[in-house]
Amino acid sequence: MRMYDLIVKKKRGETLTDEEISFFVSGVTDGSIPDYQTSALLMAICFNSMTDEECASLTYHMMHSGGTVDLSSLPNTADKHSTGGVGDKTSLIIAPTAACVGLTAAKMSGRGLGHTGGTIDKLESVPGFSTDLSTEEFMNQVREIGAAIVGQTANLAPADKKLYALRDVTATVDSIPLIASSIMSKKLAAGAETIVLDVKYGSGAFMKTPEDAVRLAETMTAIGRANGRKVAALITDMDFPLGANIGNSLEVIEAVEVLRGNLKGDLYTVSVELCANMLSLSKNMPMEEARREVEEAIASGRAYRKFLQWMSAQGGDTSYIEENRLPVGRFSCEVPAPADGYLISLDAEKVGYSACILGAGRLTKDDTPDLSAGIVLRKQRGDSVKAGEALAVLYTSDESRLEAAAAQFIDGAVILAEKTDKQHPLIYKAVR
Amino acid sequence: MRMYDLIVKKKRGETLTDEEISFFVSGVTDGSIPDYQTSALLMAICFNSMTDEECASLTYHMMHSGGTVDLSSLPNTADKHSTGGVGDKTSLIIAPTAACVGLTAAKMSGRGLGHTGGTIDKLESVPGFSTDLSTEEFMNQVREIGAAIVGQTANLAPADKKLYALRDVTATVDSIPLIASSIMSKKLAAGAETIVLDVKYGSGAFMKTPEDAVRLAETMTAIGRANGRKVAALITDMDFPLGANIGNSLEVIEAVEVLRGNLKGDLYTVSVELCANMLSLSKNMPMEEARREVEEAIASGRAYRKFLQWMSAQGGDTSYIEENRLPVGRFSCEVPAPADGYLISLDAEKVGYSACILGAGRLTKDDTPDLSAGIVLRKQRGDSVKAGEALAVLYTSDESRLEAAAAQFIDGAVILAEKTDKQHPLIYKAVR
Repeated sequence: MRMYDLIVKKKRGETLTDEEISFFVSGVTDGSIPDYQTSALLMAICFNSMTDEECASLTYHMMHSGGTVDLSSLPNTADKHSTGGVGDKTSLIIAPTAACVGLTAAKMSGRGLGHTGGTIDKLESVPGFSTDLSTEEFMNQVREIGAAIVGQTANLAPADKKLYALRDVTATVDSIPLIASSIMSKKLAAGAETIVLDVKYGSGAFMKTPEDAVRLAETMTAIGRANGRKVAALITDMDFPLGANIGNSLEVIEAVEVLRGNLKGDLYTVSVELCANMLSLSKNMPMEEARREVEEAIASGRAYRKFLQWMSAQGGDTSYIEENRLPVGRFSCEVPAPADGYLISLDAEKVGYSACILGAGRLTKDDTPDLSAGIVLRKQRGDSVKAGEALAVLYTSDESRLEAAAAQFIDGAVILAEKTDKQHPLIYKAVR
Repeated sequence: MRMYDLIVKKKRGETLTDEEISFFVSGVTDGSIPDYQTSALLMAICFNSMTDEECASLTYHMMHSGGTVDLSSLPNTADKHSTGGVGDKTSLIIAPTAACVGLTAAKMSGRGLGHTGGTIDKLESVPGFSTDLSTEEFMNQVREIGAAIVGQTANLAPADKKLYALRDVTATVDSIPLIASSIMSKKLAAGAETIVLDVKYGSGAFMKTPEDAVRLAETMTAIGRANGRKVAALITDMDFPLGANIGNSLEVIEAVEVLRGNLKGDLYTVSVELCANMLSLSKNMPMEEARREVEEAIASGRAYRKFLQWMSAQGGDTSYIEENRLPVGRFSCEVPAPADGYLISLDAEKVGYSACILGAGRLTKDDTPDLSAGIVLRKQRGDSVKAGEALAVLYTSDESRLEAAAAQFIDGAVILAEKTDKQHPLIYKAVR
C-alpha cells in the first residue's frame, strides 16, 4: 500500500477503506509517512470530506494508536466533553452530581492553552488537590466515591496528537470529519460507556452557526455509536461565556455556588441538562425523570457533599471551599461600559485572552498560570447597561497586567447595541 | 507574512497577491517554508485553481528563483517545448530547420526519465557529440551557425525543481495552473523571445482530452504573453507515438530521414507546423508563407546540411550519419500481432516502458541508457494487421531483455479493433 494512492483516491472524492485508513494512522504514528504527504491528504479531506464509515474507521485507528483506559469493571461509566468554551466549568459540577445519581464519572481532562481554560488547572486552584494519580489510585477512588478527574496520560491517541499539530499549521483544522474523529478518538480511548458532548456554537466557538454545530454533533454521535458507545450531544450557545466567572479559582467558586443550590442561571441549566442526558442514556431512563433526579441531587445538597468528598479524596484542602477562602487575585479593577446600550454579545475568545493577560491562562505550553487571576462578569446577555457602569471586575496577582487586560476586554470583546436583539437559545438542540 | 495565511486564502478560493506568491516561492527556494505547508497549499491549488494573474506571477517568481539565460544579443531567438511524448524527436528536426529560416535555435534540453526520452540522450547517440558546453561556447556556436542544444544548467528555476519533486509524491501534479507555471518558468528562464508549445493529448499524454490540452495551452500562452514573450501552442495527438522509431539512435535516424526529405508522415507534419509557427510568430509572417519557407528549407537539403554542421560544431562525428552507421542494437526480434484487426491505438506510455526495458531509457536517474536500443513500429494508426504479422521490431544490446520487452509491448500497449475508428486529428488546434 502506498500513501500516494490514498491521496489520489481522496483527491478524486473516493472513499478510503478501513485497511487504507489503518495504514495511514499507523504510518503517522510510527513516522513512516512524511508530513508533506499527510498534509496533502488532510487538505484533500477538507475539500472532499469523509463518509461516516471513514470517520468511524479513522477514529477507531487513532484511538488504538496508543493506550486505552479500561473502565469495563465499573458500573455506568459516563463522560462529557465540551468542544471548548470560555468560562465552561460544567465538569466540576457534573462529576459529583453524576456520582450522586448512580453514574461513574471517571474522567481525564486537559490543561488550558490560549483563550480556553482547562479543568486540570481549575482543580489545582484548590490547595493540595492532585491530578496526578496512578491508574490504581484512580480506579480505587472511582470505585469508592464514583468520581475522579485526572490529567491525560501522554500516550492517549498519539496519532491524533501528531495529526492535530500538523493540521494546526497547515490550515486543515476546520473539517468536520477531522474535528469529530480527533475529539472522539480521545474520548473513546478514555473508556466511558456513555458520552455526552457539549457542542458549542456562536462567536466564541469553533462552529459559528448552529447548523454547523449540529453537523459536527451528528458526525460525532455516529462515530461513537459505530464504536459501540451510547452518545448524545447538546448544541449550546457560546456567544457569551458560560456563567459569570472566568479563571481557575473563580470558576471553582462559581461551580461551588451552583452545587450549593445558590445559582440557577445558564451554567446551572447546561450542567443539569448534560448530566441528565448522561443519566438518561446510561440507564435508558426518560429525560424528565433523569432531569428530576439530577436537580434533586443538587437541591438536596448531596452533590455538594460529594464534591467535598471528591476534593478531599484527591488531596484538596476542603476548608478553603467550605470557608470561601479560595485564592482570588489581590489586585482588581472594574471595567466600565463605554456607552449606554444593551450587552448583546461578549466575544468569548477575546474575553478568554483578557483572562490570559491577567495571568489565568497559558500563551505557550510552558507558562505557569496564576490560578487566582480572572474575570467576574457583572452583566449577562441582553442586560441593559449605562455608560460607566461596571461590565466586569478583573482580578490578578500582578497589578501591572490590569491595564492591558482591561483594554483587551473593552476593545475587543464587548458588543453593545441600542436594542436587545433576539438572543440565540442557550440550548439549541439535543442530538441523540 | 505567514505561509499559514496563504494556505487559508487559497483554501477559501481567494486570490493570492504577487507579493504573497513571491514570499511563497522564495520560502520554497531557501527552504524556510516546510514541505508540509507547501504540499497543503499545492493541494488547495489543485481544488481551487489559480487565476491567469496568479499563474503569471508564480511563473515569474519561479523563473527568477535561479539563473536565467540572456539571449537578448541574438536575433529572432525561438524555442519549442513538448509536454512529453514517446518517439517525439521534433527538436532534432526543428533546430536546424529554424536556423535555415533566419531563427536562432538556442535550446536547453533534458535527459529522459521513465517512459519518455530526452533530447540530450538522443543527441549523445551520435558518437563524439557533446551537450556540455560552456556559456561562451554555446553563445559562439549559436551566433555562428544559428543552432545549439545543450544540457540544462542545474540552477534554472530551482523553485520549480523543488515544487515538482514535492508534487510528484503528494498527488498534486495534475493541476493545469501548476503544470503550466512549471513548464513556463523553465522556458522563460531559458531566454527565447518566441516559444512554441506542443501540447499533447490522448492515451500517451498527461492531458487525456483535447479540451484539457486546450485549457493547458491557453494557460501557458497567457503566462508567456504576460511575461513579454511571443507564444503559440499546437494541440497534437498522442494516442500513438510520433513517427515510427522510439529509442535514442533510432530517433536520430528517423529525424535524419525527415531532414533528407525522405519521410512525409506525422513526424514531418508536426515538425513543419511547429517550426512554421515559430517563424510566423517571430517575424510576424502569415502562416502560409512561413510554412512554405520551412518546407522549402527541408526540400532543398539546406536543413539537412545545417543539421550536419550543427552535429559537427558540437563534436559529433557526421560520418556515422552520412554513411548511415549510427549504432543500432545488434539483437532484435519482431513482435507479431496477436490477432487480425485494425491498430487503433498504441498506448504511448506502455510503448515507452517497453523501450525502457530494452535499455533505451532510465528507470532511475542513475541508470545509463543503451543508446542503440529501441523500437521501430511497422504499423501506424489505423493500419489493418493480420495475426502473426510484425507490429514492430525491438532492438537491444542485451539479448536477455527482448522477451520481457516484447511482452510489455504486446500485452499493454497494443489496442486492436475490428473496425477502424474515426481517428483523432493529428493537429487538433492551434492556440495563438
